[in-house]
Amino acid sequence: MNIEFMKKALKCAEKSLKTCDVPVGAVIVKDNKIIATGYNTREKNRNALCHAEINAINNACKTLSCWRLEGCEMYVTLEPCPMCAGAILQSKISKVYFGAYEEKFGAVGSKFNLFYDYKFNFDVKFRGGILEEESSLLLKTFFENIR
Amino acid sequence: MNIEFMKKALKCAEKSLKTCDVPVGAVIVKDNKIIATGYNTREKNRNALCHAEINAINNACKTLSCWRLEGCEMYVTLEPCPMCAGAILQSKISKVYFGAYEEKFGAVGSKFNLFYDYKFNFDVKFRGGILEEESSLLLKTFFENIR
Repeated sequence: MNIEFMKKALKCAEKSLKTCDVPVGAVIVKDNKIIATGYNTREKNRNALCHAEINAINNACKTLSCWRLEGCEMYVTLEPCPMCAGAILQSKISKVYFGAYEEKFGAVGSKFNLFYDYKFNFDVKFRGGILEEESSLLLKTFFENIR
Repeated sequence: MNIEFMKKALKCAEKSLKTCDVPVGAVIVKDNKIIATGYNTREKNRNALCHAEINAINNACKTLSCWRLEGCEMYVTLEPCPMCAGAILQSKISKVYFGAYEEKFGAVGSKFNLFYDYKFNFDVKFRGGILEEESSLLLKTFFENIR
């Protein structure tokens, strides 16, 4: 785990703010180098799929010209939802580090744990709470401002 | 439920065969009209996200210029995986009809049921086994041929 990658994910999250998107950012790392980044653009792109993790996986597959992201690690500022946790599993990302927990929709421990509760043919390691306060503060400020 | 839409989804699934992709097809229907189609292009696009359902949701969001697909129904030839079931939930699709069951990865009853086991803020209705034999046969033939 390298805290600098989560700091970079937080920087990505800030980009979502420009288009009134919930600020979530993600980076994908391979061999200790960032190979792809992403941030939430659901409102900007008017597309339900455009969460930070999906955008980052999309970019990583393009970078590597491969659908398999084995050996890659994802740093994401918020606990992945079922769609994104499922996409992490599908793309065979090896490890996920996330920031804040997501009580209502989190699929890596909060609502359920897709990487732990069910036995799939691929294991994803995970750890939450990395720069949790910074991620939470960014989200809290966003939701306070739009109210 | 209109069986013609599942027949159309099966036609879409056949397109996957051209690029040696697992044959799965999907259509999204609104007001009894098809507004988007999709088929599995994971190998073709070298992208782990490119399942039939994701491609169809992507197209539907573009067609409607909106991330909310409320009132839409999806017909898909195979039980959605966790990523796709999560995407259906995220895009607020109202109903899902699927063909064959997917024992190892199905997230609408087989491995678990994302639309039933957990309480999210949005309900998705679902029904499996629509033209199940036709969908299964297409998949079985594909896997027999590549071995």
